[in-house]
Amino acid sequence: MPSITLRIRFEPQGHIGHGKVELLEQIAAFGSISAGARQMNMSYKRAWDLIEEMNRIFGKPMLDTQKGGARGGGAQLTPTGLAVIARYRAIERAASAAAAPHIAALVAEIDGKRGDDEGAG
Amino acid sequence: MPSITLRIRFEPQGHIGHGKVELLEQIAAFGSISAGARQMNMSYKRAWDLIEEMNRIFGKPMLDTQKGGARGGGAQLTPTGLAVIARYRAIERAASAAAAPHIAALVAEIDGKRGDDEGAG
Repeated sequence: MPSITLRIRFEPQGHIGHGKVELLEQIAAFGSISAGARQMNMSYKRAWDLIEEMNRIFGKPMLDTQKGGARGGGAQLTPTGLAVIARYRAIERAASAAAAPHIAALVAEIDGKRGDDEGAG
Repeated sequence: MPSITLRIRFEPQGHIGHGKVELLEQIAAFGSISAGARQMNMSYKRAWDLIEEMNRIFGKPMLDTQKGGARGGGAQLTPTGLAVIARYRAIERAASAAAAPHIAALVAEIDGKRGDDEGAG
């Protein structure tokens, strides 16, 4: 059964999608940006660029980094970072539930059309 | 107010998102792949690659191309191509409506947290 992933657009600042949210979740789970980035097969620089993009979008930091710098010192999510994860997942669940019957109908329509397009294309 | 865009994943075949659906809509509007691609600031080859990806995902053609070749001959959407557009837009509307209150809550939470994260990160 097809599934949906969604992107929340905060134009012109940018957008958040499942990749950025999963990065936050991995950083929360492993307690550092470098460990979270490793889980995502992502460079530290790429991870930090994504975190800074989210910081800009929401106008406050996603992470509370310990003295000595994020790379050495570890990182915890701020209340804002935790809210972004929780709400994104809630939005994803609500959207998926609402989309499910339409996705099923699309799949059924496509199957029902076997043969209709004979010779086309 | 933030908005959402969504991607429907038909793994392992691929996914459809607003870019591919808008390409179908532009081809339907202008009656040829090359004109539709131009509207998307996309090369003909890129447009054709996306169409072929959708053909593979759904197991049948999105377009009915006239003799003489797609580039010269013009293209119309098949019933399957039309169904993909209509259902994707219905899925997008349903998902956006379901997500809207959660997006509003996220924005309110973020605003409410101004100051909480002072000095973090």
